[in-house]
Amino acid sequence: MTILIAEKPLGLEEFLKLEETEPASEYFDNQIIQKTMPQGKHSRIQGKLTNVINNVTEDQKIALALPELRCTFAGKSIVPDVVVLSYEHIPRDENGDISNLISTAPDWMIEILSPEQNHSKVIKKILRCLEQGCQLGWLIDPEDKTIFAYFPNQKIAYFEAEKDLLPIPEFIPELSLTLGEIFSWLKM
Amino acid sequence: MTILIAEKPLGLEEFLKLEETEPASEYFDNQIIQKTMPQGKHSRIQGKLTNVINNVTEDQKIALALPELRCTFAGKSIVPDVVVLSYEHIPRDENGDISNLISTAPDWMIEILSPEQNHSKVIKKILRCLEQGCQLGWLIDPEDKTIFAYFPNQKIAYFEAEKDLLPIPEFIPELSLTLGEIFSWLKM
Repeated sequence: MTILIAEKPLGLEEFLKLEETEPASEYFDNQIIQKTMPQGKHSRIQGKLTNVINNVTEDQKIALALPELRCTFAGKSIVPDVVVLSYEHIPRDENGDISNLISTAPDWMIEILSPEQNHSKVIKKILRCLEQGCQLGWLIDPEDKTIFAYFPNQKIAYFEAEKDLLPIPEFIPELSLTLGEIFSWLKM
Repeated sequence: MTILIAEKPLGLEEFLKLEETEPASEYFDNQIIQKTMPQGKHSRIQGKLTNVINNVTEDQKIALALPELRCTFAGKSIVPDVVVLSYEHIPRDENGDISNLISTAPDWMIEILSPEQNHSKVIKKILRCLEQGCQLGWLIDPEDKTIFAYFPNQKIAYFEAEKDLLPIPEFIPELSLTLGEIFSWLKM
């Protein structure tokens, strides 16, 4: 996963001037790290989860789930697989539309591991976001059928039974998801 | 890393009757998982860390660090890269020698990630040991030069700066190690 593009260390501002790459690059710990190209399981969970969250939160203006959204804050610029922002935290432009630039930590961030992805870096990315106001981080491992949840104050929990009810941020009390539901989306 | 040897689920007792493999196999979550073959960085840190801990703990009869020791407890049988047992927790046979069979969780367990190793499974193994009386789990990632520490009550911390002082179990107050020291052992 880790690709260091820059030959000499770049600052965040210089990084932000670079052209976007595909898959996206993140700036983090003074390193530029290109994400892995999403594969089948990753893409399926990312799309479906975004949809399932928005089905509960969008019309009621509770929150919005956004895939591959760049968030630039506290000296880093990251692109979580799914960013969930509570409705009042969605930045607006002068027309009241959603801004292009997000300059806060996600309220809820969801990362889906790909084979070959550097698991340590993903965990550190989540822990750092939690230090910056993020309320919940999920790390979904489709290969191991496990979901890790990271909370503020450096707490971790793991879920691996189908009936396990997953932790959801308090601002979406209407949402309820089990681990079994998430991984059932992979079944074709 | 994950190799399922059994074609049908085996119980722990049946697993323990199987011949030892090289590298060792672990029994865990009703699965048999063979460890990855240690490579250079893994082997170096495992050996040196065992030595450094014992230099402080062995003569004073405080604790013993043991590499690749099988611990069988609470329905699982695992072989952490380094097991540290406080002196009073070392099981003895009728001659007062260390027993061959260890039937408690390690007091301190240390895992060193190898490339290709399933990181999720290692984390879950550590979290389960902490539920069974283990006081501290270290997960050393030599590639990412990061050390994660796991504590009872599902707490996690990470260390990545050379000067970071690593958490050490309370029963070894004489030991002090920085992240930089650990990774300096890789330099040849």
